Amino acid sequence: MTSQYSKLSRREFLAQISQTAATSALIRAATAMGITASAIGCGSSSNANSGGGGNNPPPVQQNPSPRPADWPAGVGSGSSVIILGAGIAGMVTAFEMSKLGFQVTILEAQANAGGRCKTLRSGDIVTELDSEQNCLFDDEPGLYFNPGPARIPHHHDLILGYCREFGVALEPFINENKAALFHSTTAFNGQPQIARQIIADTRGYIGDLLAKATRDNVLNINLSVTEQNNLIALLQQFGSLNANLDYQGTDRAGYAGQENAGGRLRGTQVDPISLNDLLASNFWQSQLDFFQSLDQQSSLLQPVGGMDNIARAFEQRVADSIIYSAEVSEIRKTSNGVNIVYRDATQAQMSLQADYCVCSIPATVLRNITNDFSAQHASAINNFVYSQSGKLAFQSRRFWEQDHNIYGGISWTDQNITQIWYPSAGYGQQQGIIVGAYTFGAAAGTEFANLSPSQRVTWGTTQAGQLHNEFLTETSAGISVSWPKMPYQLGAWGVSDPGVLTTADDNILFAGEHLSQLQGWQEGAVLSAYNAIDQIVSLVQG
Amino acid sequence: MTSQYSKLSRREFLAQISQTAATSALIRAATAMGITASAIGCGSSSNANSGGGGNNPPPVQQNPSPRPADWPAGVGSGSSVIILGAGIAGMVTAFEMSKLGFQVTILEAQANAGGRCKTLRSGDIVTELDSEQNCLFDDEPGLYFNPGPARIPHHHDLILGYCREFGVALEPFINENKAALFHSTTAFNGQPQIARQIIADTRGYIGDLLAKATRDNVLNINLSVTEQNNLIALLQQFGSLNANLDYQGTDRAGYAGQENAGGRLRGTQVDPISLNDLLASNFWQSQLDFFQSLDQQSSLLQPVGGMDNIARAFEQRVADSIIYSAEVSEIRKTSNGVNIVYRDATQAQMSLQADYCVCSIPATVLRNITNDFSAQHASAINNFVYSQSGKLAFQSRRFWEQDHNIYGGISWTDQNITQIWYPSAGYGQQQGIIVGAYTFGAAAGTEFANLSPSQRVTWGTTQAGQLHNEFLTETSAGISVSWPKMPYQLGAWGVSDPGVLTTADDNILFAGEHLSQLQGWQEGAVLSAYNAIDQIVSLVQG
Repeated sequence: MTSQYSKLSRREFLAQISQTAATSALIRAATAMGITASAIGCGSSSNANSGGGGNNPPPVQQNPSPRPADWPAGVGSGSSVIILGAGIAGMVTAFEMSKLGFQVTILEAQANAGGRCKTLRSGDIVTELDSEQNCLFDDEPGLYFNPGPARIPHHHDLILGYCREFGVALEPFINENKAALFHSTTAFNGQPQIARQIIADTRGYIGDLLAKATRDNVLNINLSVTEQNNLIALLQQFGSLNANLDYQGTDRAGYAGQENAGGRLRGTQVDPISLNDLLASNFWQSQLDFFQSLDQQSSLLQPVGGMDNIARAFEQRVADSIIYSAEVSEIRKTSNGVNIVYRDATQAQMSLQADYCVCSIPATVLRNITNDFSAQHASAINNFVYSQSGKLAFQSRRFWEQDHNIYGGISWTDQNITQIWYPSAGYGQQQGIIVGAYTFGAAAGTEFANLSPSQRVTWGTTQAGQLHNEFLTETSAGISVSWPKMPYQLGAWGVSDPGVLTTADDNILFAGEHLSQLQGWQEGAVLSAYNAIDQIVSLVQG
Repeated sequence: MTSQYSKLSRREFLAQISQTAATSALIRAATAMGITASAIGCGSSSNANSGGGGNNPPPVQQNPSPRPADWPAGVGSGSSVIILGAGIAGMVTAFEMSKLGFQVTILEAQANAGGRCKTLRSGDIVTELDSEQNCLFDDEPGLYFNPGPARIPHHHDLILGYCREFGVALEPFINENKAALFHSTTAFNGQPQIARQIIADTRGYIGDLLAKATRDNVLNINLSVTEQNNLIALLQQFGSLNANLDYQGTDRAGYAGQENAGGRLRGTQVDPISLNDLLASNFWQSQLDFFQSLDQQSSLLQPVGGMDNIARAFEQRVADSIIYSAEVSEIRKTSNGVNIVYRDATQAQMSLQADYCVCSIPATVLRNITNDFSAQHASAINNFVYSQSGKLAFQSRRFWEQDHNIYGGISWTDQNITQIWYPSAGYGQQQGIIVGAYTFGAAAGTEFANLSPSQRVTWGTTQAGQLHNEFLTETSAGISVSWPKMPYQLGAWGVSDPGVLTTADDNILFAGEHLSQLQGWQEGAVLSAYNAIDQIVSLVQG
């Protein structure tokens, strides 16, 4: 069966919370979920509430979604396609359609391919609508920053399959780290708490309360004596309870005297946080369960040396079909196909005709391009909502490893920087790149977008300094990307219901992560490409 | 405060379980804990019950344990020390005592250093007491097997500090993987279950039961209305409950149609397992909470290319002090020091005198060497219990990645192979090394020890084939190490209370992982070395 719950919209989910939880809890839950659509996507995972809350899946991707094996060999011979955009969706489309015999051309507005699949290294330049930054990292292989996609869940088997086929080397990406921090400006006097303690204490109190309720036979459930005893024993281990079923702390939470728990050998077990403080801290609204969600569960992966190795691998295979620096100005329908007008690198106006078009231009950009789209499609494009997310990274001595035993993972704060990411590679090196801010949620993302690059550095180090004061003293070369400020992107990832945009508009199909069940993920870009190709194959076959 | 619970002996823990749990549960819990001492240690973590259950810490390691910074420069000049054994404990002792000015000699029985810190590669030979094996892995950098220590918790900051100082490159070690399997021969008709489902369903039912008990005000606890509502909202997210506080499944458990959850894009959410089946499956007795324990929590690390890089790095720094192939036959006290008798590589009997001796020979071996130990020390050595653990590895196509999206982590079974370990590196390569058995618990370890190497391969593939039938058809080059069968080791790790062996026997000190709070871990070997050095420094200072 499919859980009703997993089909709830965010609004429905909140409506339901409101039936059981206090208004204050509702408001906080809304905040935790980033209820502006913009929290949905890879940043917060498409199920920050882990029971769903994502968009309703577009019908076309149900049972099963199409796969290249479904398409007859040579089906494309004699047919032509123009693909708009050389991001992952566009290049997957080109790669697969070429194999099917289609004559493929990609128009890419920028001088390079990859779109948001981007890695910044020493000497790179970030050009936003109203600013330009130079990447001042030292020129070393380990010093890079993935401002866009930065992790791949282990079950995203399409993008992982391409990595295997193309020989893109992968390594573990540490997402959950119990040595990382949970920080609330309104709890524990603003002192960051170590994840291991919050998680262990939460399990402890849950186990304590339920084990006693089970023992006292106050549960409204039928269990045999053996099952009852098994449930109590389960909860003893689940919560690390003593023989009286009391939770009195556990070494899972670490030892006092050293935040890094190396202190276990010198100190005493840390005291548990009280249940009341735990409930008041609100960590449970997102941080506590975040890594349980399907797309955030261990294990995750990353390309060795930078996410753009994936873009480069695709580009090697489709480069001959790409026209770079080709900015599309008109998308026209013809009697039997499409006519695309664009300005080339010399600003000369050019046009290109083909039987079909796959448009992977983000809706935020596409809505400003003259077109012949149907009223339905145009309206969906005009109203499509995007996440405003951005990231800020620094080079630094790897103080998080050397001084705090934090090797990879994510720390959380209720400040607008939202997350700190520690690198999953280069352990033991002196210098590393740390992500000091990853904003999602419309308020944080918009604030970030409206700051100048130098303002973001001050803003980020001030907030991140609340978790690690080394941000104020040891970080350098701060560089940021605000996706709504990036030309030809104008947003981080789509969060509206793909709806009609997953269907053909005459001979025009649409693609991109925003038109998938996995918005904000490269896997979603692949799925959207397969959907577009599948419908063109059907059109060709008549 | 220190939880009473964390100070319980295993026996006390079981006595306490028995007050609350049925006898059958007690027996199963005992089995799960491997209650022969031998489950305690790195295999099952020293807190498989995660509430303690380890040994009482030796007094010397309390508040604080000694560190090199505590020792005065040059304190050793004019003093000599003989170190027995060139494993991690012996080499740390030599490295640090040389820096203090001691004249250091290490006697190592084998032709190479490192002890149990070992890595097997193509062409290596494993010589047990009654068998010899050649490592038939292909000769490629990624194809190696760590039969001894294979992971380093992030808070083991002493061994990690040496890795940083020596330039030993580290990378993530994936311990918990929600795509890995839980297998019970007596549950679910023997069908392996995906960890993500067992974990998500357990959280779901716990959340469901406790949320309803909270709503119905049957808990014996005082909460304000806000706290009560917060607890309910916490449990909704913790368990992924619907608005009625029912657990009806969650996408955290993955999607049907593909074990690897890539199926989410084609299938429907998997049905939850019933609470009754979950309780009967007994996964909760160890597998379910294993990765919560302090030494098993994310993140963990491993040296790039093999654990023995750590041994090699120490060896480079102390090699001049090592006499290899020197088998100690007598450990004698003299009026003002020690006299060590040994046979050298030519079998000639030699003797060596020094002011002090640090003996890191495993107790299982040491008890057969003629000595002048005090009655107390001799008795402790004679009665020290060791884990019987062993491991079995294979080369294979990386079917676990290519066909099942399992990238690193551990699968569990109640068969005697106990665990399957998937490699945390080399993703995307065609061939990999998979650990098909890691036995701990005396019964499994002893059975393993008594099988011939070829019998272990059949035994291992047959059992591992219950989880992945590819073990029966695609694995090759099976090679195993049973630590109780390894000369000069005769056991995997110590599990008795270090007790008197952490104190001086005249001018003789003892070291090794078995004499620490972290038995079975390299960090424990370092701590035991620091303890021995600290007491010699005190003796020198009078």
